[in-house]
Amino acid sequence: MLKKEGDPLKKFVLIPDSFKGTLSSTEICETLERAIRAHHSDAEVVSIPVADGGEGSVDCFLTALGGEKVTLTVNNPYMEEMSAYYGLIDNGQTAVIEMAACAGLPLVETRKNPLKTTTYGVGELMLHAADQGVKKIVVGLGGSSTNDGGCGAAAAAGVLFYNDQNETFVPTGGTLKDIARIDVSQVAPSLKEVEIVTMCDIDNPMYGPTGAAHVFGPQKGADKDMVLFLDAGVQHLAEVIQRDLAMDLSTMPGTGAAGAMGAGMVAFFHSTLQMGIETVLDTVNFEKIIQDADYIFTGEGKIDFQSLRGKVVIGVAKRAKKQEKKVIVIAGGADQGIEEAYEVGVTAVFTINRLPEPLEISRHKSRENLYDTADNILRILQ
Amino acid sequence: MLKKEGDPLKKFVLIPDSFKGTLSSTEICETLERAIRAHHSDAEVVSIPVADGGEGSVDCFLTALGGEKVTLTVNNPYMEEMSAYYGLIDNGQTAVIEMAACAGLPLVETRKNPLKTTTYGVGELMLHAADQGVKKIVVGLGGSSTNDGGCGAAAAAGVLFYNDQNETFVPTGGTLKDIARIDVSQVAPSLKEVEIVTMCDIDNPMYGPTGAAHVFGPQKGADKDMVLFLDAGVQHLAEVIQRDLAMDLSTMPGTGAAGAMGAGMVAFFHSTLQMGIETVLDTVNFEKIIQDADYIFTGEGKIDFQSLRGKVVIGVAKRAKKQEKKVIVIAGGADQGIEEAYEVGVTAVFTINRLPEPLEISRHKSRENLYDTADNILRILQ
Repeated sequence: MLKKEGDPLKKFVLIPDSFKGTLSSTEICETLERAIRAHHSDAEVVSIPVADGGEGSVDCFLTALGGEKVTLTVNNPYMEEMSAYYGLIDNGQTAVIEMAACAGLPLVETRKNPLKTTTYGVGELMLHAADQGVKKIVVGLGGSSTNDGGCGAAAAAGVLFYNDQNETFVPTGGTLKDIARIDVSQVAPSLKEVEIVTMCDIDNPMYGPTGAAHVFGPQKGADKDMVLFLDAGVQHLAEVIQRDLAMDLSTMPGTGAAGAMGAGMVAFFHSTLQMGIETVLDTVNFEKIIQDADYIFTGEGKIDFQSLRGKVVIGVAKRAKKQEKKVIVIAGGADQGIEEAYEVGVTAVFTINRLPEPLEISRHKSRENLYDTADNILRILQ
Repeated sequence: MLKKEGDPLKKFVLIPDSFKGTLSSTEICETLERAIRAHHSDAEVVSIPVADGGEGSVDCFLTALGGEKVTLTVNNPYMEEMSAYYGLIDNGQTAVIEMAACAGLPLVETRKNPLKTTTYGVGELMLHAADQGVKKIVVGLGGSSTNDGGCGAAAAAGVLFYNDQNETFVPTGGTLKDIARIDVSQVAPSLKEVEIVTMCDIDNPMYGPTGAAHVFGPQKGADKDMVLFLDAGVQHLAEVIQRDLAMDLSTMPGTGAAGAMGAGMVAFFHSTLQMGIETVLDTVNFEKIIQDADYIFTGEGKIDFQSLRGKVVIGVAKRAKKQEKKVIVIAGGADQGIEEAYEVGVTAVFTINRLPEPLEISRHKSRENLYDTADNILRILQ
């Protein structure tokens, strides 16, 4: 089955989402490439493991595009010094930051408490990158330990938060309600020149029953009362932002992401909130990469009917369709009734379940199942 | 996705085994054809649901080849009159008989007793077909209620079994031990002119620990003592056959099939024992059918490593490989390590599990899962 003499060289573009809980997007790329090499030993294979903004996103971008990892000392969620990093890609023109690097939930271990944790370090990473002269900063939200509405990051960047004693302070989840006034005039000039894009795959608003505190507070350590307290704090922040910065973020989808960090990114950094996959596609210059591709392989844990929005597969397919490229999806599972996927550009959807087994069993052989599925797709494509 | 103007007409040959316990081979053919028609509305589709010799085999042949069902009155396992049938195919040149039609286990309901049941009716069906002038009779073994070594069928066809009082009788499982002598000189002349082929997918010998009584006796109602008694009877039959007919069947694989009916077919009807799939492929003239085929779809419940012999998929692939045809396998499950399948001619193996679910759940949507899998294969083939 090896490539015959005279076969034109094939180009494969691999751009999978992770299979949540079983395989990372990087592992999927590696497995797919191995299957491809078994049939097309000298094919061109471009691997773009898709980052979702959470932990590992910087590595995904570096895998896809190359670049350099910049390590520096910033503040952790408890304002203690720690070593964190961001990625410099695109010849140093773009920085990629994952907030989990210095505000992530794993960092607080047994000290989960969204009343006290801060995103301050994220602002430090952004400031450092801006000072290097980047033109664009991509900030990935996800996996946070915080509920500070991004006020910590903003404070690090020069935004001033005043209490009713007219004293500045760095608000955390527990002190958002003390913000009396916000002054953005002192934001670091280096940041003002930079385009900032925030990767954010969720739609939740800042506050209310589907807001940051109610939906994500509990996993960060908030009990019922604390959720209500946090929610009130975020609502107060929204009101001050509306009054002092003339922005109504109260119902904007995505502002509730990462402890309302989404709102902070918009309010204090004039960032756009963008689906992760769109950010990846833009950043890697997907349209150019696929121009001479024969096949695009993408996939995700489960292709389902509800909410195809923001899905990696759909994002990839829509752009590939414009160039009439074949998009082959390999998924952990696929619901019935996914006609819309084909309509937007998916060529075919294959699932990796080689045996009728529940996930508890099959998850331990996901890599082998993925390989075998890809292997057979490649056999049929020949 | 409908066929574009100017596309050459595609020809698909569908030749699946059943997915045991979930979908019959006929249901699989229907589902695959439906998926094909959605993409290639006027394709040529040849459906050959594979018969395994058991219940439904006659209908499989009639579906694949057309023909007529002949209904007549014969004796059931308890020598009571019943209506049974066989198939006439190949312009009346070939008869297809399933022994389950008049010797099947479902027919005895609460009266399971392999000491007493007979295959007499099967001989009557064969004789009737021979009297119609067929040139070939295919007899499918499987699903039997009997352990008579085919002596009942032989008696119906004119074979004489004598006891030690020199009286003729029709031996059953319980009286095999009483056979003192066998005389085949009176077999109906019409049968002697006919080629007889027996479909038999198992390897068990007549008697002994892996023989008919030990392995299949219990499901026919035999307790431990009865198994030993039946086994001794079959061994006695083997000895008489060896002495009177000069045939040593004692270790021949397959002679233990269907209560040692396999042995009786060889000894009394000079039949060959043949794998079901080989019989089907011969009978439908598979080589000719696939000559102008674009794709061959086959499949079975599970593709596994152990014993690829006798498997439908392998039988199909081996013959298709000689004509370098694409053989696409759709299976309920596929083990790892099935390289041998590709070596003998399988192009690719896809599995129908669209979600990671155990068979208890997925079996209820096998048809939908099969359709979706076929649908996506067809999308990628375009």
